[in-house]
Amino acid sequence: MTQIAPGGTIGILGGGQLGRMLALAAANFGYRCHIFCPDKGSPAFQVATDVTVADYEDEEALEAFARSVDVATYEFENVPAVTAELVARDTLLRPGVRALKITQDRLLEKEFLNASGVKTAPYVAFQSADELKAAIKEIGRPAVAKTRRFGYDGKGQVMVKSRSDIDRVLEVTGGQPAILEGFVTFDREVSVVVARSASGDVAAFPVGENVHTNHILDTTTVPAKISDMVEARAKVKATRVANALEYVGVMAVEMFVHDGSGEIVVNEIAPRVHNSGHWTIEGAETSQFEQHIRAICDLPLGATDARGSILMKNLLGEEILEFEPYLEDPKAHFHHYGKQDPRPGRKMGHVTWVNGNE
Amino acid sequence: MTQIAPGGTIGILGGGQLGRMLALAAANFGYRCHIFCPDKGSPAFQVATDVTVADYEDEEALEAFARSVDVATYEFENVPAVTAELVARDTLLRPGVRALKITQDRLLEKEFLNASGVKTAPYVAFQSADELKAAIKEIGRPAVAKTRRFGYDGKGQVMVKSRSDIDRVLEVTGGQPAILEGFVTFDREVSVVVARSASGDVAAFPVGENVHTNHILDTTTVPAKISDMVEARAKVKATRVANALEYVGVMAVEMFVHDGSGEIVVNEIAPRVHNSGHWTIEGAETSQFEQHIRAICDLPLGATDARGSILMKNLLGEEILEFEPYLEDPKAHFHHYGKQDPRPGRKMGHVTWVNGNE
Repeated sequence: MTQIAPGGTIGILGGGQLGRMLALAAANFGYRCHIFCPDKGSPAFQVATDVTVADYEDEEALEAFARSVDVATYEFENVPAVTAELVARDTLLRPGVRALKITQDRLLEKEFLNASGVKTAPYVAFQSADELKAAIKEIGRPAVAKTRRFGYDGKGQVMVKSRSDIDRVLEVTGGQPAILEGFVTFDREVSVVVARSASGDVAAFPVGENVHTNHILDTTTVPAKISDMVEARAKVKATRVANALEYVGVMAVEMFVHDGSGEIVVNEIAPRVHNSGHWTIEGAETSQFEQHIRAICDLPLGATDARGSILMKNLLGEEILEFEPYLEDPKAHFHHYGKQDPRPGRKMGHVTWVNGNE
Repeated sequence: MTQIAPGGTIGILGGGQLGRMLALAAANFGYRCHIFCPDKGSPAFQVATDVTVADYEDEEALEAFARSVDVATYEFENVPAVTAELVARDTLLRPGVRALKITQDRLLEKEFLNASGVKTAPYVAFQSADELKAAIKEIGRPAVAKTRRFGYDGKGQVMVKSRSDIDRVLEVTGGQPAILEGFVTFDREVSVVVARSASGDVAAFPVGENVHTNHILDTTTVPAKISDMVEARAKVKATRVANALEYVGVMAVEMFVHDGSGEIVVNEIAPRVHNSGHWTIEGAETSQFEQHIRAICDLPLGATDARGSILMKNLLGEEILEFEPYLEDPKAHFHHYGKQDPRPGRKMGHVTWVNGNE
């Protein structure tokens, strides 16, 4: 396993807030970051040593990028497979192409999870109206239809409650390959952020409990209100996923928990640092961003203990303009992603309280 | 007092590790940093949004720099006065020109401190051989001769133990204006990192105890081994200095402590974030770098409490290459400044243990 020593150069595909926070963590260890992103105004560019503004299909630019770095990684799971393959030809790509291919496709992801012994909601693939009808028959109602590719923050998803929803479903999926998932009754949604290093060491952070509003993460709370047994089992599942993927880096595994039965159903996995892990910046001994850098550079993984009870809250749109109360609160840690335009629903920053909400 | 809201632009004169760590802290709040430094290979450039490579005497470059930022600051006290004045003409300069002028000159600094009711070692100014002889007569021996300007890490300093040292002293001072300081017997050296915001709020961090090796800071330990009374008095002195200077930003006040008498003598002040405050990054609720950004942007100052017992150790020269044990130690936080050439004595990084050395 190749180690990239501090002082080396890390390439990051994607220039959003995740790339930005990765670059900041990498800088603490003396790494230079080269960010590749088509968007000139990328927030991560503001803290990067080198930037490339080019399309993800620009072979020449990708080749130059790959050759300029010691290791490359990505901050979003919709990196085109061809992009990843091009980069992987000229440098180490961590995590690798396989993690992308599986997590870009809800069907492959669910097949992989179940084959790894990690339970998901029941699901059936469909594309046409007839297939959808058959799927509803098998899965029952209510159910959730999701396009196989390019869904995030609830995009490309639609509930199926009655037969009359069929037209709406096909409108949303647009004839693209999709899956119908059985509706899971659960008491809470949690996520496990887990790291696996190039040498195969694995470390999971404490389980975080997530609350979504309008399909966008609103808060993460640590510890989650689950039993020690469920906490331990959730971590085992995340570890199993990371190992089965031979994953390198930090990933997030989202799960639904039923309090009464203690049942855990894995909802989805993200092959990257994750919004539900932002609490680790001040709330854990090592942040998820530093941990990702450690993992992909094959450094020893850091300690994952929480520093107490933590609350992370996203700041969307113009919420970012009301920063003063957070800066006045001695228990609050304010983050602003450097984005100029606070349009509604846009993730502009977040705030983390450490032992501040008892 | 003008507040610079998160998302604004901060100019930093100087591109070393202090400028780098300031830029990283500023980025957490969404500020863009524009670094001005004559050295193309400046470590701070690696994490800056904009850079200007130009001499500190380049009026045109300074003007363009000043006009591109909402507030400017500096990471070293030897910014030429003319540079500071040029920048201050076109933007807010925090801390201001006065803090620079006083702290660039050991004589002015000592006069200022004593006039503010803060005791220093006894001192007499000299330049010629005759003046030096008179100074020795007044101060007694042993004493320390120091050039008035451009001294750091022990440069431009020489001990005066016997009459035969006179020639050596004049060789080091080179006929430049200098001072002779009475030798202070002390048990420990401590420093107080204190912040004063544009609105006049003041907050001091817990006192750190410093150990120097070959005139270069080796370790800082918190809490310092001093009584609560001495701790409180040290903070009062630092606060008095910050207020008397109408200072804006973070400054460090170095002091000698005599355990028996509890006497405190102020050695020198640095109008900037300081190596003896690096422990605050993980060891305090707010880092000195974030605190400086808060102060100069006129945000509320952050909490200064220590998170336990802290040890910060500098990594000089090739010590930076032995990073593995620090990364394996769950209580250690490793920092690498991104410098390529680990020449002997060069500050390459540091490591901070939080509650790790009981």
